[in-house]
Amino acid sequence: MRETLPDLVVEREQEGKIVFLVLDGLGGLPHEETGLTELEAASTPNLDRLARGSALGLITPVAPGISPGSGPGHLALFGYDPIRYNIGRGVLSALGVDFHLEHGDLAARLNFATLDEDGKVVDRRAGRPPEEENARLVAKLREEVKGAGGVQVFWESEKEHRVVLVMRGAGLSAELEDTDPQQTGVPALPLRASSPEGERTARAVESVLERAHQVLADEPVANGLLARGFATFEPYPSMEDRFGLRAVCIARYPMYRGVSRLLGMDVAEPAETDAGSIDVLASELQDHDFAFVHFKYIDSRGEDGDFDAKVAAIEAVDELIPGVEALEPAVIVATGDHSTPSRMRAHSWHPVPLLLGSRWCRPVDVDGFGERSCMRGELGTFEAKHLMTLALAHAGRLSKYGA
Amino acid sequence: MRETLPDLVVEREQEGKIVFLVLDGLGGLPHEETGLTELEAASTPNLDRLARGSALGLITPVAPGISPGSGPGHLALFGYDPIRYNIGRGVLSALGVDFHLEHGDLAARLNFATLDEDGKVVDRRAGRPPEEENARLVAKLREEVKGAGGVQVFWESEKEHRVVLVMRGAGLSAELEDTDPQQTGVPALPLRASSPEGERTARAVESVLERAHQVLADEPVANGLLARGFATFEPYPSMEDRFGLRAVCIARYPMYRGVSRLLGMDVAEPAETDAGSIDVLASELQDHDFAFVHFKYIDSRGEDGDFDAKVAAIEAVDELIPGVEALEPAVIVATGDHSTPSRMRAHSWHPVPLLLGSRWCRPVDVDGFGERSCMRGELGTFEAKHLMTLALAHAGRLSKYGA
Repeated sequence: MRETLPDLVVEREQEGKIVFLVLDGLGGLPHEETGLTELEAASTPNLDRLARGSALGLITPVAPGISPGSGPGHLALFGYDPIRYNIGRGVLSALGVDFHLEHGDLAARLNFATLDEDGKVVDRRAGRPPEEENARLVAKLREEVKGAGGVQVFWESEKEHRVVLVMRGAGLSAELEDTDPQQTGVPALPLRASSPEGERTARAVESVLERAHQVLADEPVANGLLARGFATFEPYPSMEDRFGLRAVCIARYPMYRGVSRLLGMDVAEPAETDAGSIDVLASELQDHDFAFVHFKYIDSRGEDGDFDAKVAAIEAVDELIPGVEALEPAVIVATGDHSTPSRMRAHSWHPVPLLLGSRWCRPVDVDGFGERSCMRGELGTFEAKHLMTLALAHAGRLSKYGA
Repeated sequence: MRETLPDLVVEREQEGKIVFLVLDGLGGLPHEETGLTELEAASTPNLDRLARGSALGLITPVAPGISPGSGPGHLALFGYDPIRYNIGRGVLSALGVDFHLEHGDLAARLNFATLDEDGKVVDRRAGRPPEEENARLVAKLREEVKGAGGVQVFWESEKEHRVVLVMRGAGLSAELEDTDPQQTGVPALPLRASSPEGERTARAVESVLERAHQVLADEPVANGLLARGFATFEPYPSMEDRFGLRAVCIARYPMYRGVSRLLGMDVAEPAETDAGSIDVLASELQDHDFAFVHFKYIDSRGEDGDFDAKVAAIEAVDELIPGVEALEPAVIVATGDHSTPSRMRAHSWHPVPLLLGSRWCRPVDVDGFGERSCMRGELGTFEAKHLMTLALAHAGRLSKYGA
């Protein structure tokens, strides 16, 4: 007995194009006074019109109760089981700064930290240095701590106290434990292998971190580094291999481009504005079967805890919808990678509203696009990893399973 | 690549408490005249009020169409996959009589039976003896059939014709077939091992059953024993290990305490009444993060086939709700371990109404708590094994999955 469907038989001659509009962090919770969520409160005449003719539902990004990060949230949307295809934190950080990882690269997320005279952690984030200070420290590390013994070393700035360390060389293992003790008043943990397989790599990383500590020793604040999330980069089976799709990513933030690259998507030159992303879409859709367009600000305003600003960010995307419809894709999906209720100021586990527009829907009588109208839709609440198959079907790209 | 979620990272410093109110057998079917289920017909002003602000849904205890026993029904509620963590019948019987099983104990459920002169089964239940008669027979077995060869033997009364046999010793195997032929007019089956691993144990059990038959030979009715459901007791990963919860069971019937003990829950001294259980809850919640309160009579009246009495049993629990709310847990769940429609007089497969109250819900416009209002709720119909993760999320006890 098999546990999974066979490889999907894709009818390549079919030309139905698929557009995924991902409103990052779309799902919300009711406002305590009005009882309406951000999406329900937003004036979205275009999404509402689309919803009235579409298949509606709610997607659970990972599993009930699980609040996903952006990595698993997007993998699921693209049809990759987010549990099976778990991206390590280090790799995600490298993708997030647009670092072009190669097969076998080892990546970790580091924090600049403040240590006292005894080496105990005083501040795990070194006072959250500003961008220029982070850049100065990283430049110093780049200059002074280079590779050795056949291993190349790369240092990349992330935001505030965060740095990405990438090591490239033969046979690197990610079987390493974090050195971040996750508390202050204690020293950083020694770099340990989590299995014998990691021993050799542990010594190489230890040497890099020791040299880095020497270089930072004279810094008044950022005189230490804490490491976590060691992960090696293994390319995933591509969307072209799995679904027969020539896919393109249109995203203005590097992490989303990085995740897309991981799945073999082409990555379009980012636009300056969200409206510009639609112009890019118009152009890229000519040579691609699938386009992922990412809209960031809905999530950002949710994380700010600003209900009204999240509403406005949703409304701004709504204005772009006619431009997408004009391109006449076979399937338009509008959804999010997870919920970010402004009341929670964080990613949450709540299922995400989903609209899938195509010729082949069973619309229900709803006023518009919202959490509660989606509850009544034909798709019910289902795991996000099934969305891609559904979209392929609606685009006429899947053949029958079994005779 | 992994197939399951990593260990859930539980934020232990969070103190959101979770209360599960399990109304055993809660789900029902519409009355043939009124069209209302027991829960819909019951006057439940408190549950209705709670429902209007809660997340609603229906839970499938095991899988569509599967009517669960109490064991799998409760395991699923507590986040244990009831298929993976199947409790053997013998173990469940031992737990049901409050027998304290030890690791490796072998347990079986036996029937007192009536055999004719040729050893053929005349009555598989020996006329369903009353309690005192069962106790007399068990006392006789205890007196006469003790352990031998390093194996201890325990006999415990269950209801009517049922007895629990527990054997304790090194290396006992549950690879044994039932001796109950499940029909009359034929002899009991010989005790057979179902694999070579069970051979040695088969001989030990055979010897115990042979001596028991000698002891019962002079009984006019209960002159035989039929065995089924051999199972060994292996402790499960505890709720504390899996979910970081200090959990407590507040149940007035032994089987539910036994299942809870299996999962490492503390077991509170049972109260005399259901109202008393709420007093116990108030006390136990001070030292626990999670409390399971069990209400038995809804199921009992459903099994009696008494619609009105089941309605009354639901109403009696409703009156206790304000006492639970007064304790201000972060999450209140009210549901059942399975449905017991009074029209069926038995456990059924129908999904069970679920109410989950917390600060983080998306309430829908419903009149109250019932099968059909739950169908419209935000949680949809889902497998009961996911309920615990959802409750942990609503209590603020889970961190994000992936970066």
